[in-house]
Amino acid sequence: MKEDFFPVLDAELVNEISAVRLVAFDFDGVFTDNLVLVNEDGSESVRCSRSDGLGLRKLDEAGVAYCIVSTETNPVVARRAEKLGADCYHGCADKLATLNELLAQHALAPEQAMYVGNDINDLPCLTSGVLSVAVSDAYPEVLDVARYRTRRPGGYGAVREICDLVYRIKTCG
Amino acid sequence: MKEDFFPVLDAELVNEISAVRLVAFDFDGVFTDNLVLVNEDGSESVRCSRSDGLGLRKLDEAGVAYCIVSTETNPVVARRAEKLGADCYHGCADKLATLNELLAQHALAPEQAMYVGNDINDLPCLTSGVLSVAVSDAYPEVLDVARYRTRRPGGYGAVREICDLVYRIKTCG
Amino acid sequence: MKEDFFPVLDAELVNEISAVRLVAFDFDGVFTDNLVLVNEDGSESVRCSRSDGLGLRKLDEAGVAYCIVSTETNPVVARRAEKLGADCYHGCADKLATLNELLAQHALAPEQAMYVGNDINDLPCLTSGVLSVAVSDAYPEVLDVARYRTRRPGGYGAVREICDLVYRIKTCG
Amino acid sequence: MKEDFFPVLDAELVNEISAVRLVAFDFDGVFTDNLVLVNEDGSESVRCSRSDGLGLRKLDEAGVAYCIVSTETNPVVARRAEKLGADCYHGCADKLATLNELLAQHALAPEQAMYVGNDINDLPCLTSGVLSVAVSDAYPEVLDVARYRTRRPGGYGAVREICDLVYRIKTCG
Repeated sequence: MKEDFFPVLDAELVNEISAVRLVAFDFDGVFTDNLVLVNEDGSESVRCSRSDGLGLRKLDEAGVAYCIVSTETNPVVARRAEKLGADCYHGCADKLATLNELLAQHALAPEQAMYVGNDINDLPCLTSGVLSVAVSDAYPEVLDVARYRTRRPGGYGAVREICDLVYRIKTCG
Repeated sequence: MKEDFFPVLDAELVNEISAVRLVAFDFDGVFTDNLVLVNEDGSESVRCSRSDGLGLRKLDEAGVAYCIVSTETNPVVARRAEKLGADCYHGCADKLATLNELLAQHALAPEQAMYVGNDINDLPCLTSGVLSVAVSDAYPEVLDVARYRTRRPGGYGAVREICDLVYRIKTCG
Repeated sequence: MKEDFFPVLDAELVNEISAVRLVAFDFDGVFTDNLVLVNEDGSESVRCSRSDGLGLRKLDEAGVAYCIVSTETNPVVARRAEKLGADCYHGCADKLATLNELLAQHALAPEQAMYVGNDINDLPCLTSGVLSVAVSDAYPEVLDVARYRTRRPGGYGAVREICDLVYRIKTCG
Repeated sequence: MKEDFFPVLDAELVNEISAVRLVAFDFDGVFTDNLVLVNEDGSESVRCSRSDGLGLRKLDEAGVAYCIVSTETNPVVARRAEKLGADCYHGCADKLATLNELLAQHALAPEQAMYVGNDINDLPCLTSGVLSVAVSDAYPEVLDVARYRTRRPGGYGAVREICDLVYRIKTCG
């Protein structure tokens, strides 16, 4: 495999990722390119990557839990989550409250969770003490606070990239 | 935050933006990438950015009114406007007449309104004395008359960019 | 207007375009990016540019006829043609036969017609004596025989570009 | 035709391609860009290239068999295969078992078949002794084992490119 297949990470970040037992993903802009197809009857569709499914299966294998936390009310979020076999909390007015409930439910400290986001409504979660990750095309305010940035943009393999990274560190040391 | 997060604007343009109390947006090519998905039953769908909603909420916060003015007859324009909570005038044969009615309705002078467009049917509005804005991928005739050009192309965050800019100038001085 | 708004054309090509009274367009890859969205019920959708409508209106104004000639059997071609107000011949097993019928019907010599295509099934029409145009992302075999290549790729304004060019030459000399 | 129309292939690869009598294609990421449009009712759509149909007709002409082998359970794979006139095995939990059955059914040795893939679930097929091809945007693990890489990415003409290549070698020497 090529040497540059994964980025060289500093040892501290590797340690932080090693501690992760739950990954909470924002949906729009992370699983998608942040675009929405609006049909003339008002129904919505979003574009996701087939590659994400294989990524989540790696998290299963590594024993890392994951879920989707979204403010979006449209049921398209839940439909994609079902197909991927991911827990889903959508229509969340307060994403940080949901994240904190998840930590309590899994009995995890913030540093045992990772949160992946792209826009300013992710800032409360990203700055709550969890390992913060921004997709490469996140808004500047989000990139500014993120501990790690993906190479791939949202919707084009960013989720898979994170899963591959966590899997590799959790299983290969 | 990065220094180049917002463009450096000349003082006169900042003054002009400060005066804006209404933003009128064209729809296709501004909220969308100017493409349309045509289904075999003739129904249409367009692709919009999830990021625009947070932008319009900032205009609400800054007390700036906004609406969509489109010549397109397809109801997809109205469906997107509803989701965004934006007033919508679509199927407008004469967009300038609609813009002038809006100015009268809000009791505004032209220089208190901004108009955002991308194609030649926006030229009458753009040259009517309002603050004229073109998305970065507008047609050359439109770019030629625009007082300001967005960095982002239509459908990929141009609306959000304008909202962020207006919000920042109206609220931060 | 910017000097480079239109390409500099040699005088002979300007003369050839001046003679055009009918433009026959292939559909997929010309009005679209040559992609098709396939739904799980087998229905199809294609992506077109809103900008093409304003272009065809310019051909109306210049008194130049136009039509769509496609081998594709799916009715999505006809649906788009209806919206654009364009005559449409789809499901054509022999596009050259259709083109020749059109020339006879309009009583035109081949050099009074332009044909716009992108793939190898357009070669018979493109090499039949009409003014041959390829979209910028056409297949190499098509680019090789085309008298003129658009700047924009199919589905992203290539049709509008051709209409603007014909209009300008027919009306401005 | 331009000299660089086809890549210069080493003589051994030309010989290997000459031996091919069956091409087995993965679907997502090969016929598509590996993205999926998820509708709010949970139905799925994928984006394919119109150019692939003309490519498969060339394989027909060259007497080369082809089929689609996919793990995806959604019927959209079968719908696209029907339109293209391609045999389709989808919902395959074990793609290598399906490939081996196909070889037995056609009475072919592995080196008489080509397999085209893009992701890690294609690795068993790609390393089974057939002629292995990766689309240009395949995952690194796939690119690493592929005997040949296409120039075009999945969904944007990769299938057509492979068909053109096989046709040219099988029919022109």
